[in-house]
Amino acid sequence: MLDYFKIPKKDVVVVQAEKLRRTTEKIFEKCGVSKEEAQLGADVLLYADLKGIETHGVSNLLRSYVDWYNSRRLNPKPKWKVVRESPATATIDGDNGLGLMTVAHAMNIAIAKAEKLGMGAVSIRNSQHCGAVGYFAMMAVEHDMIGWCMTAGGNAMVPTFGSEPKVGTNPISIAVPTNKKPPFIFDAAMTTIAGNKMGLLERIGAPMQPGWVAHDDGSPDMDGGGKFDFFLGNQRMQLPLGSTRDLGSQKGYGLGVAVDVLCGILSNGSGFASLAGERRAHFVAAYKVDAFNDVDEFKTSMDEMLQGLEDTKPAPGYERVLYAGLEEYEEEQKRKSEGIPLHKEVVEWYKGTCEEMKIEFNLI
Amino acid sequence: MLDYFKIPKKDVVVVQAEKLRRTTEKIFEKCGVSKEEAQLGADVLLYADLKGIETHGVSNLLRSYVDWYNSRRLNPKPKWKVVRESPATATIDGDNGLGLMTVAHAMNIAIAKAEKLGMGAVSIRNSQHCGAVGYFAMMAVEHDMIGWCMTAGGNAMVPTFGSEPKVGTNPISIAVPTNKKPPFIFDAAMTTIAGNKMGLLERIGAPMQPGWVAHDDGSPDMDGGGKFDFFLGNQRMQLPLGSTRDLGSQKGYGLGVAVDVLCGILSNGSGFASLAGERRAHFVAAYKVDAFNDVDEFKTSMDEMLQGLEDTKPAPGYERVLYAGLEEYEEEQKRKSEGIPLHKEVVEWYKGTCEEMKIEFNLI
Repeated sequence: MLDYFKIPKKDVVVVQAEKLRRTTEKIFEKCGVSKEEAQLGADVLLYADLKGIETHGVSNLLRSYVDWYNSRRLNPKPKWKVVRESPATATIDGDNGLGLMTVAHAMNIAIAKAEKLGMGAVSIRNSQHCGAVGYFAMMAVEHDMIGWCMTAGGNAMVPTFGSEPKVGTNPISIAVPTNKKPPFIFDAAMTTIAGNKMGLLERIGAPMQPGWVAHDDGSPDMDGGGKFDFFLGNQRMQLPLGSTRDLGSQKGYGLGVAVDVLCGILSNGSGFASLAGERRAHFVAAYKVDAFNDVDEFKTSMDEMLQGLEDTKPAPGYERVLYAGLEEYEEEQKRKSEGIPLHKEVVEWYKGTCEEMKIEFNLI
Repeated sequence: MLDYFKIPKKDVVVVQAEKLRRTTEKIFEKCGVSKEEAQLGADVLLYADLKGIETHGVSNLLRSYVDWYNSRRLNPKPKWKVVRESPATATIDGDNGLGLMTVAHAMNIAIAKAEKLGMGAVSIRNSQHCGAVGYFAMMAVEHDMIGWCMTAGGNAMVPTFGSEPKVGTNPISIAVPTNKKPPFIFDAAMTTIAGNKMGLLERIGAPMQPGWVAHDDGSPDMDGGGKFDFFLGNQRMQLPLGSTRDLGSQKGYGLGVAVDVLCGILSNGSGFASLAGERRAHFVAAYKVDAFNDVDEFKTSMDEMLQGLEDTKPAPGYERVLYAGLEEYEEEQKRKSEGIPLHKEVVEWYKGTCEEMKIEFNLI
């Protein structure tokens, strides 16, 4: 984790994961979500909190979800359904339910198809925010499959050479099974940083970094230090991964557009307002390793590769070379035993919400 | 195309595409390749030359291919075969043939599976260079499918925080059918620039740009201006897309590793020396649009989205906003009628090679 994402020590309250999970489940239930779905939703959020992905855990997301349930932007009891299907694929209408749950159901369908046919993919429309896409990719890993998950939504990314935000941050996750090493879990927005990191940064008072956003006229801000009102509101323009054309921003932009295609246009056709901020759609795929190769050989080779990457001699100023998912795995081990550090503001929010909803508050 | 990739006017020789195609086919045949396969190989190279992707056309690639056929590094008559198969997937052993041809055959298999089941994917091992991955992704587009192609090989990319090259440039292509607009064709290395661009830059005497390579100790060179011996040889260290950790280089690095997994480890298991420079493997997938949604609605929506991106108000200093594949499409229209501008050195090479191989030279 980069230092500027760390919560200042004086603001940290450590909370046990299981208490946080149960309280989160109860809050979902009070929003009208069934017990089973509430457990699933809390599991997706806790996945992020345990791994140190604060941007996609309870702190940054749960209060929005509660607001959205209250305002009926979110359907607490969605009747999601498969609206089109082929042997290896399906399209789901999410009936405006929270993506945390709907994408998990979609991935179960993809996994079942991959189990039979070698691979499966599902595109999901009329959905809402789905949290950390890595969670759903990891569902496939538990079945010895390579999992993919993408999500499209919002207008945050300014196209290369452009001066208006048109594409979402549109994260991609790819998770791969291993033998002894922690699994490879790539999970990243196609902007230089995830949109939710902005909220986190604001809360902890971190400075804006170079290469993250565009100035009002669209030109990349390569100096940093800007204020947060610089990117909020009408001109919320995050730069694509690559930041400038010379550094390859057309690649982050192009991948972002591809995510919109696979999630939104594939599931929705002309019903999908591809450049409208309110859209939210997802795509999952599962590739069964055994369909391509021997599973044990594959996993052994993965271990070797990941170890080889870790063994790379570090550049000056760095202690070691990581691979995607490694640091989060280590954090997870730590947080499972020591608890999850939350910003005191978040704990206050839980306290107030529990009071309002008449839930027993026992986080601290 | 960035200006520093343009061939200086005094060095340009314009050649008609069909003459270049026929001469290239004959050269492949003289290397021992069958007539049909030679036509396919030339078609893949001409695809790049027509679209202005000089790095992956005849100029940069054909002479290496000829050398490799001569030295038997390449098998001119590979007996490639499907070594493992499931209904929706296959694994191919390429028998060390040139990827230009083998990946096309693999994509045909993926397309046939997608036609039946909604999607298909093929992982290819024991192969060699495959040229522009966009060619193979576009094969699926002709069948109203979304096409993917990736290729893994070489040690060019230095992992984030590392000081040794471990991963390939590992390009990804995603091509998507449209109605009236030129198709969306994303085709990009997961390093800030493609490895082959280095050769091109050297030939045309362009300067090294900031954010492209690492210094000998692994620290990102964010100043540029370096000499070409700086990145050739043992320390050929290209930076992942994102260049530095603060700009998101862990994302280019992670995607690069994922490409190695899908191409190499998936097809080869422990037989795949994942971090060895000499490996070369590929992955293709086809998603049938009709399996997910109405094809006409999908294409109409694609047109709308791409037009919406083009209509983005440009940032100061830019005339217009592009999308992946647009500029290359326009260049293709121009080059089909006006011819392909080659560096005079390349034409000289053709002349010499034709003489040696006893092929009639009629390019100019």
